[in-house]
Amino acid sequence: MFTNLEHLGLAVNDLEAATTLYTTLLGMEPYKRETVESEGVDTVFFKVGGSKIELLGGTTPESAITKFVAKKGEGIHHVAFEVSDIRAEMQRLREAGFTLLNEQPKRGADNKLVCFVHPKSAHGVLVELCQEITSSDLEVD
Amino acid sequence: MFTNLEHLGLAVNDLEAATTLYTTLLGMEPYKRETVESEGVDTVFFKVGGSKIELLGGTTPESAITKFVAKKGEGIHHVAFEVSDIRAEMQRLREAGFTLLNEQPKRGADNKLVCFVHPKSAHGVLVELCQEITSSDLEVD
Repeated sequence: MFTNLEHLGLAVNDLEAATTLYTTLLGMEPYKRETVESEGVDTVFFKVGGSKIELLGGTTPESAITKFVAKKGEGIHHVAFEVSDIRAEMQRLREAGFTLLNEQPKRGADNKLVCFVHPKSAHGVLVELCQEITSSDLEVD
Repeated sequence: MFTNLEHLGLAVNDLEAATTLYTTLLGMEPYKRETVESEGVDTVFFKVGGSKIELLGGTTPESAITKFVAKKGEGIHHVAFEVSDIRAEMQRLREAGFTLLNEQPKRGADNKLVCFVHPKSAHGVLVELCQEITSSDLEVD
């Protein structure tokens, strides 16, 4: 089940400049910064109600964020939904014909297991499913 | 104050096809359809946790949604934040140097007063502020 719009990921060119601007725009300080080395991204998180805004800055030329900004410019990169059972949702969507970008849940930022749905499967929207990692998931990664 | 990620607007080409697909993807039926004639859009709403997904289909060639899809393809169009006092936030952002796309709050879908911040002011993101219309706002529009 899809239980929450967990976060919205914004791809930016200059993470420090974007952090300053979003601090002003949202009228609040970010509550967390995190580097995801496997993805080549630095992240900055803001909390608005029950959802988060995740600023994403690429740290390597190969990073998906670096490539996204080079190709399309800065902007909204993906939307992430919290799901109650990521493996069950992945199976359901696979059977319904959606193209998933990873076969198994992988470890993302913010202590989550994540899976991405291809934008071609979702009218141009990169959709992320995510689920909080619990102790029973610690064998993953 | 920014209190919630109220909704995410997705611009689509074929609203019926997108509604069918998102019904499957999200695993739920839409709860509302609404036409905003002044904007030339038909909308379909899904509720995920405390936020909404708003599918937007342009109904006229002049519609911002029709133009967006023609220029950039289908995808995420805007993010809307619920604010506690839209006029105060507009004033605050104007003074901080943000470019607003309307000088006064205007009536949007879903019984809201809305204002848009120019994407050039927000690292490529079209940001909407919105506030539920109450009886004291009925003179607007």
